[in-house]
Amino acid sequence: MEVTQPILFVDKDRVLKNIEKMAAKAKESKVLFRPHFKTHHSADIGEWFKQNGVEAITVSSVDMAEYFTENGWKDITLAFSVNIKQIKRINKLAEKIDLGLLVESQEAVDFLEKNLSSPVNIWIKIDTDYHRTGIHWDNETVLSKLIRNIRDIEKLRFIGLLTHTGHSYNAKNKCEIEEIYADTVIKLKDIKERLFLQGFSTVKLSIGDTPTCSVISDFSEVDEIRPGNFVFYDVIQLELEACDEKDIAVALACPVVAKHEDRNEIVLYGGAIHLSKDIIYREDKTYTYGLVALPEGKGWGKSLKDTFVKSISQEHGIIKTTPEIIKKVKIGDIMYILPIHSCLTANAMKKYFTLDDEELNYNLKC
Amino acid sequence: MEVTQPILFVDKDRVLKNIEKMAAKAKESKVLFRPHFKTHHSADIGEWFKQNGVEAITVSSVDMAEYFTENGWKDITLAFSVNIKQIKRINKLAEKIDLGLLVESQEAVDFLEKNLSSPVNIWIKIDTDYHRTGIHWDNETVLSKLIRNIRDIEKLRFIGLLTHTGHSYNAKNKCEIEEIYADTVIKLKDIKERLFLQGFSTVKLSIGDTPTCSVISDFSEVDEIRPGNFVFYDVIQLELEACDEKDIAVALACPVVAKHEDRNEIVLYGGAIHLSKDIIYREDKTYTYGLVALPEGKGWGKSLKDTFVKSISQEHGIIKTTPEIIKKVKIGDIMYILPIHSCLTANAMKKYFTLDDEELNYNLKC
Repeated sequence: MEVTQPILFVDKDRVLKNIEKMAAKAKESKVLFRPHFKTHHSADIGEWFKQNGVEAITVSSVDMAEYFTENGWKDITLAFSVNIKQIKRINKLAEKIDLGLLVESQEAVDFLEKNLSSPVNIWIKIDTDYHRTGIHWDNETVLSKLIRNIRDIEKLRFIGLLTHTGHSYNAKNKCEIEEIYADTVIKLKDIKERLFLQGFSTVKLSIGDTPTCSVISDFSEVDEIRPGNFVFYDVIQLELEACDEKDIAVALACPVVAKHEDRNEIVLYGGAIHLSKDIIYREDKTYTYGLVALPEGKGWGKSLKDTFVKSISQEHGIIKTTPEIIKKVKIGDIMYILPIHSCLTANAMKKYFTLDDEELNYNLKC
Repeated sequence: MEVTQPILFVDKDRVLKNIEKMAAKAKESKVLFRPHFKTHHSADIGEWFKQNGVEAITVSSVDMAEYFTENGWKDITLAFSVNIKQIKRINKLAEKIDLGLLVESQEAVDFLEKNLSSPVNIWIKIDTDYHRTGIHWDNETVLSKLIRNIRDIEKLRFIGLLTHTGHSYNAKNKCEIEEIYADTVIKLKDIKERLFLQGFSTVKLSIGDTPTCSVISDFSEVDEIRPGNFVFYDVIQLELEACDEKDIAVALACPVVAKHEDRNEIVLYGGAIHLSKDIIYREDKTYTYGLVALPEGKGWGKSLKDTFVKSISQEHGIIKTTPEIIKKVKIGDIMYILPIHSCLTANAMKKYFTLDDEELNYNLKC
């Protein structure tokens, strides 16, 4: 396929390897693998998960839940504190599928009691010190009262405690990720035990971020894992040591439109509306909007040394590179950007092509 | 209209005032007003410009040029260094409309000479020390040679020098923006004079960024202005003193899904896939992903004091606020986020509603 404008390519072999590896680890640990589909948003890529035995998934919006329901998925957790304004659509979903909802307040539970028309699974969103949202894991009083109230409502099937350990993204390396996972498990098991003493004997535990799910092998202390980003990985995960570069399964192909040899810069057609605007700060205080590779075979090669996306504006990407590369590359050539945050790049592009030029869909509503 | 999920609202009255004001300034200065349509991407909003006598526009991609051509625009400058990979579509456009292209290299000119099938207007992209791209303004030798070569090609109608003074976005206030404009004009006039002495007597000058176009009143030293963002403005422009808050014409309405009174934080359904991920650092070293307002009348009120978007993830927005506001706001209420960078928020949302609930289109291809 001739690349004439920014195109997001997916290396299917790498995606399949990433899925197989995570599915195998979950199986080995005897936990449910409930991957988060917010990264790829694609019914086509969803099929690749089905081939690996995946039947239960996670999403983060009603739009996504509807889309994957339409595409045959029947067991979906909407892992976002329930948005009561969307109750009509939630009710329709709950009629059709095994729907899991997240709550973190008595107000939300009261609302569901009055307005929900079909039974749903209920998870309580727990804050294991990431502090984005959720009830703090140590707040036994609030938690036990909320669980009791949930159990009193027939339509609400209490399942357990769900956390997103997003602070793993602040880790510097594998060791720190392992420490965060260990810390999370200690907290979850502690509150689970205390709830057990209060008579709640079947509290399941669900964890989910890609860094911990990639680095940890044994998940036997929890009941399910919900990683999402691992399907593609990206430069953030690479910097965290959660993946190798050869695991990164998406790259944005961009035409070269200008060169500035005096400052070793190449200008690409490919900017914030294609890549999104995530950034990574490195230890040496430099930052980048992406790594850069040249075409190789049907896809892209290893990322170029001393070459990175220095800045982006709406449609421009400015590459800082070496005198050797700038001499080699011509106007009209194609360069590949390995994205900082693949979830947002996929969302910006809303379409993929495999290296065999097969178009893969993306749910446009999300 | 009941807001059940993130919706981008446009205050049409404010947009019309922004357009009228800029059109009036251009008229007064006797320069062509060629607004950049990359901010709104909307044929509907394009009509509001037509009502103000606008006939010539700027775009930054072939997708956008095709879209506005289909919607009746006949004089379009594609203000992005020509992407030679899209020559087929450029040729189709050049058959239909008065098309302006940007070049900054002999390679691009050679390519156009060989491959262009209809005449186009040619601007040379000039770097007036923003250093994103373009030929440096002081590079008389390269410029005069390139103009001479362009003039030798019948299909290429040389028009003039075009610059984007993007470093105005680094200004701290109005005064600094005025200085950048003055500096840009000195440089453009200097090279224009030198080119005149070489026999190029009809070199037009085109400038374009919203900060300078908003702050400056008299553009009589250039020939056209191409601001884009001014149609909506945003928090970046507010911080630059390029607009007042009452000029900001878009806001993202988001449902409240959780509250954390212990840390004065509110969790909204509305994150990076809705707002985009632009950030603003203030003088006091704090940063924000947006200002926050409550509903008022059909739209939103003044931004709340000591309240801002502290962080965003894919779908979450975390608002830092005061004890008073957190008591007032309930789960299921709607809050409005004034975006940091409205171009990217519009691109992320790809749809608008006016305060009278009229849906406005956005070119989905861009």
